Order: sequence, then C-alpha cells, then structure tokens
Amino acid sequence: MAKGKTKKLRVIPLGGLGEIGKNITLLEYSDNILIIDCGIGFPDDDMFGVDLVTPDFTYLVNNRDKIVGLVVTHGHEDHIGSIPYLLHKLDIPIFATRLTLGILENKFTEHKFDFVPRLHCVAAGEHVKLGVFDVEFIRVNHSIADAVCLAIKTPVGVVIHSGDFKIDPTPVEGEMTDLTRLGELGREGVKLLMCESTNVERQGYTPSERKVGESLVRFFEEYRDKRIVISTFSSNVHRVQQIIDIANKYGRKVAVTGRSMINIVKAATELGYMNVPAGVLCDISEAKKYPPSKMTIVSTGSQGEPMSGLYRMAFGLHDKVELGADDIVIISATAIPGNEKLVGNIINELFRRGVCVLSDVDANVHVSGHACQEELKIFHALTKPEYFMPVHGEARHLFRHKELAEHIGMEPNHIFVSEIGKILEIDQNGARYGGTVPAGVILVDGTGVGDVGNVVLRDRRKLAEEGLIIVTAAVDFAVGDIAGGPEVVSRGFIYEKESEETLSALREIARDSLYEGLRRDITDWAALKGRVRDDIAKYVFQTTRRKPMVMVLLMDV
Amino acid sequence: MAKGKTKKLRVIPLGGLGEIGKNITLLEYSDNILIIDCGIGFPDDDMFGVDLVTPDFTYLVNNRDKIVGLVVTHGHEDHIGSIPYLLHKLDIPIFATRLTLGILENKFTEHKFDFVPRLHCVAAGEHVKLGVFDVEFIRVNHSIADAVCLAIKTPVGVVIHSGDFKIDPTPVEGEMTDLTRLGELGREGVKLLMCESTNVERQGYTPSERKVGESLVRFFEEYRDKRIVISTFSSNVHRVQQIIDIANKYGRKVAVTGRSMINIVKAATELGYMNVPAGVLCDISEAKKYPPSKMTIVSTGSQGEPMSGLYRMAFGLHDKVELGADDIVIISATAIPGNEKLVGNIINELFRRGVCVLSDVDANVHVSGHACQEELKIFHALTKPEYFMPVHGEARHLFRHKELAEHIGMEPNHIFVSEIGKILEIDQNGARYGGTVPAGVILVDGTGVGDVGNVVLRDRRKLAEEGLIIVTAAVDFAVGDIAGGPEVVSRGFIYEKESEETLSALREIARDSLYEGLRRDITDWAALKGRVRDDIAKYVFQTTRRKPMVMVLLMDV
Repeated sequence: MAKGKTKKLRVIPLGGLGEIGKNITLLEYSDNILIIDCGIGFPDDDMFGVDLVTPDFTYLVNNRDKIVGLVVTHGHEDHIGSIPYLLHKLDIPIFATRLTLGILENKFTEHKFDFVPRLHCVAAGEHVKLGVFDVEFIRVNHSIADAVCLAIKTPVGVVIHSGDFKIDPTPVEGEMTDLTRLGELGREGVKLLMCESTNVERQGYTPSERKVGESLVRFFEEYRDKRIVISTFSSNVHRVQQIIDIANKYGRKVAVTGRSMINIVKAATELGYMNVPAGVLCDISEAKKYPPSKMTIVSTGSQGEPMSGLYRMAFGLHDKVELGADDIVIISATAIPGNEKLVGNIINELFRRGVCVLSDVDANVHVSGHACQEELKIFHALTKPEYFMPVHGEARHLFRHKELAEHIGMEPNHIFVSEIGKILEIDQNGARYGGTVPAGVILVDGTGVGDVGNVVLRDRRKLAEEGLIIVTAAVDFAVGDIAGGPEVVSRGFIYEKESEETLSALREIARDSLYEGLRRDITDWAALKGRVRDDIAKYVFQTTRRKPMVMVLLMDV
Repeated sequence: MAKGKTKKLRVIPLGGLGEIGKNITLLEYSDNILIIDCGIGFPDDDMFGVDLVTPDFTYLVNNRDKIVGLVVTHGHEDHIGSIPYLLHKLDIPIFATRLTLGILENKFTEHKFDFVPRLHCVAAGEHVKLGVFDVEFIRVNHSIADAVCLAIKTPVGVVIHSGDFKIDPTPVEGEMTDLTRLGELGREGVKLLMCESTNVERQGYTPSERKVGESLVRFFEEYRDKRIVISTFSSNVHRVQQIIDIANKYGRKVAVTGRSMINIVKAATELGYMNVPAGVLCDISEAKKYPPSKMTIVSTGSQGEPMSGLYRMAFGLHDKVELGADDIVIISATAIPGNEKLVGNIINELFRRGVCVLSDVDANVHVSGHACQEELKIFHALTKPEYFMPVHGEARHLFRHKELAEHIGMEPNHIFVSEIGKILEIDQNGARYGGTVPAGVILVDGTGVGDVGNVVLRDRRKLAEEGLIIVTAAVDFAVGDIAGGPEVVSRGFIYEKESEETLSALREIARDSLYEGLRRDITDWAALKGRVRDDIAKYVFQTTRRKPMVMVLLMDV
C-alpha cells in the first residue's frame, strides 16, 4: 500500500445527500472502515411498485475485511432501516444506545440471519474503540429517545457527525443536548463537522417537545366529554409518554392501536424509557366499555399509512373502534413531503363521519425533532470545525446549510457540498475531493432485493400511463400462412364498452399486416413482428392519439 | 308538471364539493336551469394516465332545453376549464366579465365547435336576466383580475355565490371586494349563501397582493447585481404587473417565457388589464444581450410543471436562457397539494447549478387569493343568509366552514354540507335535501373524453405496481398437443439480468400445466387458460412474493 494513502482519512457518504432517507456515511483510514448509520429510503412516485430503497453496498462488500464496525446515532428508519439488508451480506458488529438496539432487535425478528447479530450497547458519554477510530457517543435531543451524535477521533483529527438533533432545554425526559461536551471538543479542535440539514430553511428555534404537552392539556380541558384519539409517530416515546401522563391526570384510560405503536410502548416500557402508571393502559378491545370522557386512544397512522390504526378507524375498517360525533382526533405530526394527500384523505373521511379533527396547522400539537437555523448556528459555533460537510438533506438543504455556515464566518472553500459516492480526502495538508466509490440505490420490491431495474421501471411507467395491446398469432412459415389467430387483447388501454369494436378493427389490421408480410416472404421473426407492431401502433395513435405498449407474440407451428 | 315542483328552487352542485377543482353548480326553478361556473379537475395519483377530469354532464344533456345560460365568476381553470367539453355537447350562452371571456376565447382556439360560441360580456355591477333568474355580477378581489361573485334573484329569494374571493383593501388595481353591495343585499334578505371554503383552516386575514410587491422590492434592492428570475401563475396579472413595474423602476428589462405567460401578458395588455411601459419588455431571445443587473425574467412553472419555462431553465433545456451563479430565482407561488415534490425537484436542481432560490417559505413572495377565517366571517356577517351551503373545498374544508358559520351564530340545521349530485330544495316552507341527479367525474385521456373507465384504471394500477407475465401457446385440440410455444414474456416484472432463467422456468411450468390439462381432456378454453394462469401465478408468488398480472393466450390451430 502506498504510504500516502495510509495517511489520508477518506469520508464517503453512501446516502442521505440530495435525498431524504437512507443515511449512511463511511470513514476510511488505511485498513479501517467505520460505518455511521445505515438507513432506508422510500421510493419516488415514479418507482412503481417499489417498496423500499437501500444504499448500494458494493463498496462495503468489496472491502469487507476492512470494516471495523457500524455505529448508529438513533433508531429512526432512515438511520437503521437498511441494517438488516447489510447484515444479509456482511456480519458486522453494531454499536448503539439501548433503545436503538431494542428497536433493532425487534426489527431483526422479521429477518433470518446465518449468525447471531453482534450488538453492543453504548451509553451516551461512553467511548468505543474501533480500529484506528475512537468513537464517543454524545447525548442529543431528538424526536426519539436515546439519540446521540458522534465525535470520532481519527489519525487526522476529530470528526463530529451530528446525527439528527435539536436543542431542547426542557426535554420531557433526560437532559438537553450536551452542548458542554461539544464546546470542549470545539476548543480542542474539530477537523470536520458533518451536520444534518433537515430544517435549515426554517428560521429561529424548534419549540420544545414540552410545548406539545401544553397544547394537549388545552384540548383535554376543552373536550372533557369527548373520546380523544391521538395519532403520532410510534417512535416518539416522549410524545406517547406525555399523552399517557395527561390522560392519567384527566382520569382517562389509554388504549393503544397499530402494530408498531403496541410494539414500541411494550419495548420502551420494558427498557425503562417509558413509565406507565399502573391501571392506565387497557386493551383496545375494551375501548367500548368506557364512556368517551374516560377514554383516550393512541394510534399509528399520522402519515396516512394505508391499514394503519388511524386509517382503519377513519374508513370503518377497525374491528374494535368506531369513530363518530363523540370523538375528536388529534393528528400529532406533520405530513412528510409526499404524504400530504394520504393524510388529507383520512382527515376528509373523519369529517364525513362527524369527527372533529385537530391537526398541526391550527392546533400546535406537533414539534419537529430537527434543529432550525439558530440551533444549527449554535452547533457550528460550539464545534468550530476546520471543514464542514452538510449532510441529511436534499440539494436545496445542503446548499442552504453551506450559506448558513458562510454567514457565520466559515471559509467557502472549507465547505464541501458532496454527493453520494464522492470521496472527501483529509490529511495534514487539507481537504479535497478524491475520486468516487460505487454508490446509488437498490430498489426493493416484495421479498427480492435489488431485482427491479431501470428497464422494469420504464415498462411499468409506460404500462401505467398508456396500457398495453398484445397481438398473438400462430404462423406456419413453411406454407406462409396464419395457422391460428391473430388474437388481440388489451389491458389498461380502452374503455371496456368500446373495446370489442376496437379489438376487431385491430385484429383486421394485424391480419392484413401479417399476410402482407408473408406475401413478401418476410421470414425474419423480428422483422415480421416489428411490421405488425408498427401497423398496430400507427392505427392506434391515429384513432386515439395514444401510445400504448404494443407486444406482438408469434409462434411458428 | 306538478304545481308543487314549480315553486321549488333546486340547488345542485355537480362538482367542487369534497374535492379541489371542477366547480360547477346548477340552480333550477321550473323550466329554468342556470349553470354557475364549469371547471376542470385534476386526476388523483392513482388515476394512471388520466390527464383531466370533467364533471358528468348527463343531467344537463338530458335537460338541455331548460338551460338558460352559464355564468362564470372568473377565469381560473377550476372554474372555466370544462366549458369547452360542455360546449362540445351543448351550445349554451356564456356570461362573464371581459378578462374571463378573453381567456375563454384563447382556450377555444384549441377546440373546434360546430357553432360560434355565444359569449356575452357583463361588467361587475351589471345585471343579466336569464329565464326566471336575475344575475348580478359583484366585484371581488382574487388572484386573477376581473373576478366577481354572483347575487341571483330567484322566485324564492336571493342566492349569493361567492365565487373565489378575498378582501383586499389595497389591491394593486381596481377596488376592494364590493362589501357595500353585499351588505345591502344582506339587509334586503339573502335566502342562500354558497361560499368558498379554500382557506377556512387559516386564521386571520389573507395579506394584500401589495405585500408581494413590497417583498419583491426588497429583493430587487438586495440583488442589484444579479439577474432576477420570477416564476408565478400566469393568470395573476396583478402579480405580473407588479413585477414589470418594479423591474422598470430598477432600470431592468423584462423578458417573458412559457407559453401561457406569453399569452396572458399579450391578452391582458390588449384588454387593458395590464399596463406595460414602453421599452420595458424584450424578447426572451434577447435575454443574453443584457447584463444580469439589467434583466428580469418572468416565467411559468411555479407548480413544477414539466417543460414549463422554469423547468426548462432549471434542467438546462431552455434554448434561450442558461441559469447559474449570476441568477436568483424567486418562486412567487405556493405548491398546490400534490405538486410539492415537482417544485422541490426544480429547487434542488437550481441549487445544484449554483442558483440562489427564494421561495414562499422564507421570502413572503406570495399571498393567497382566498379568504381566511376573518374574511369569511365578514362575508357571512354582511350577507346574513337564511341558509348556507359551504362549497369549493374538500370535506374537511366544508365541515370546518360549517363550524365557522355556527360559531358566528348560524343555526346548525340551516347549514347544508352537501355532495355533488345532491339536490337542495328551497321553497317558502324552508330548505331540505330532495333526491339526487347523475353526477361524478369523466376522465379525459389523450383526445378521447370519458373513455377511461374503472376497469382500465384498475388494470393500469396493477400493471404499474406488479408488472405483467404473458403466456402464449398454439394448441392443436384435435390431437391434444401443443403445436407451438409456450412462449413466456414479461414486462415490468423482473430485473432484466435474471429474466432468462426465470422465463425458462416459467415456460416449463406452462408446458407441464398445458400437457397435464390436455392429458385430462380439458377442452374448455377458459378452464385450460385458468389452469395455466393459476400454476404460473402460484409459482411466481412462491418464488418472488409478487403478484403480477398473468395473461394466458391460447390459439387453436
């Protein structure tokens, strides 16, 4: 190995840049690769039928012997969701806080590995030594408990990765983001800061989680006679804790619905992250036993997810709960971009049932888990990094984070708005880009991983937009005649009522086209098929201005 | 005709309730049907390949002889967009203000009618008598010039339809919504108010259009050295007027790009709705001739529309303009729900090109054209209607508008949250629902109208989500043998690399299934096809957990 190479730290984001989701970053030094987070992404609207998106693990698989471990900042899907898919390829030791590990273990029950995953619990404030790296876990506030940022001592200096954070001086549980430790590190010298950019477009500060409790109390006061149904992110255990505490104070029972909500309440209680007073919880099947004024329901579905608890209640599909004029529904969340319509559909349906719905817009029943501009400035000002790479955001967020860093005094040429797969090299002489590694997305559909490619997506798009016409015929090439067919069927193309007439016209076209081809002694299959396809497509376009996919299947008999 | 029937006013919304878009309402009394607006809707995400949605005109076609006319409140697509499709069925006289007619005439150039559309210009403040109805056009402020609300004198009393409105005491052009006239009507007695509900979830007042100008001036001051590109709705002529005025004041030329923007500036100038100082406008092809500090570009594309002016500039597809670090782009609009991602994609692309983007969130460069809660209350308080029907909104908006009306003192049983096709009957004895008329949506795809049905949509959805497998074979039933094939092809289903192996396995399955069927003397086509289809589907599901559409095409040879 060249000597020069061993002295460089290579920082390689494999996801989370130019996109929301699937956060993963590599730090590589000599024969050591440290992985930070390994999240999942969600498909774009035009990725028809794709369920999930994972990072491309090629580089990790090719360098498997160098990997010293995976450190995880917190238990949200966009930071842990691809870990099972990575473990299917590589057995890597994982280091995370207790709640994060609990969520991971729960996730692993749905996957079969050839080995027992190596999970190591690290508390905020502790260090773990992985190869040349010394990783310090530092407490941060976020919309999930037990979140940390990371200070990684490397041979070229300290790298700080913010994870996801906000600064909440009055958290519901635990303490504020450890600004003191960040300030100490800044004083000692930070080589590189990688900081999340989610809320960089928002001015000021993100309100404290406690604000949500204050709003909820207001509604528990105002709607004493109604049953109160609250939908929120199951992973926000502090939010759920507040709901349980307030319900208890107002003499209400709490029932939980939605699989992930049930799981998380159980796990968080067992691990001590949630404190449920005895006798408050009741099973959702008992919900009808109590009068509305004595009942609170906590549910999944705040993103409008089909078949979630709230969805089933709204559309009358829930076998234990029926909603109506005695209920108010509080949606304690903001729709993630792309989910607005799903959430809107549920709200509309609830209003149609006479349910009063309170959502974020008018009710202040949600706060973000991410730092706004002033909090980001504090993070920068404390850590005083020599170099800065904005992470965790679409292009707009990364560039705006760059502007923010410049605004508070950073040199523009010390800021690297990078891309996935792009290598940032840092050594004693400075920092610069140095090549790329394989990176991208792997599309997951059903049980398969990585088996939906671009051609398939293009076909699905075409089929979705324009539908399909299939022409099939049996041809006896020996005598130059049509032995069977042609048959024409369509799917997703024309209105059922008109179709017989149209199909009959298309059969005529196909027959003429085939005979004409055979008459001319075209015996090349591809040429004959192409001829029929072109004739059909031309006719269809002329008569309907549409371009469905046309497939011609010929059989030699 | 029964005497009782002739004395009732029937109010029939054919669109705009429980949805955004395609506003259309009928007032029917005896042999008179008055149509108010006739807008277009846009397809939901799951209406694959559908371009537009029009109201169902069945009731109008069946009662064509009763129609006395179509009155139009303003020139936005959701109020006029379906007029050409209605005119293709019925020749109806149209009554609207001058700018609205200008926009309609422009739209008509893309349609061929067997007759010359009968267009009648009515100014705000004027009346038009249509059958038993006397329709008064009343000035309102909205995000398009020349908008009106309607006061319709009917035999059972006055009906007020708000159209779309806000109350802008400092409009850029013209005067405030005619509150005085509304108050007079209220004093004289209003039987029914139909009022728009778009912004009923927003507290307070919608800011004046003039606020946008003030924000823009700030940016023209701040970015004196940059070229300023502003994207907004082409129909907001007051917005465009403000941009032109400010650019002129700062010694900049203005170039316009995007077809609808070019059209509207031309039409509005000709009709006197826009006042462009001489020498300010220049052709977009000259944009490069001027230094950035001397140039302003006004563009379409504020909703992220593919191939709009802004889209082409952002993605480097514009043949006259290249954007870069010398440009700032101001998006003077809010993304309509569902368009957030399209707009986001453009913003990301602009940042990647080094362009600074200012959008609504941080820049205050857009105001809504719709009334917020306090303005709605003023409208109610002035008109003091006996009955109220909230219109123009999703279910959530209609029900919240009902709450608002109750809050300011209306009797709940005087408020009718209706549905499309539902008849509200009003006579001297009161108001009540009374049956329904055919109503719904007609899906427009390509040049056809109404030829995309539910089966087609279901197929497109299935194809889009899961793809398609086609099995085809020529069968000689006489001897019970396979004469050709089976061939298996797939589209949108599996990754191309794996496909040959999978297809070969599927061919085996199909062959076995066919032979087994023929061996058992199954000569019923449908049964044989069904057998093969089931075997293929089962194998595919077992191996991939997917359920593509499976089609089996057999030919008898």
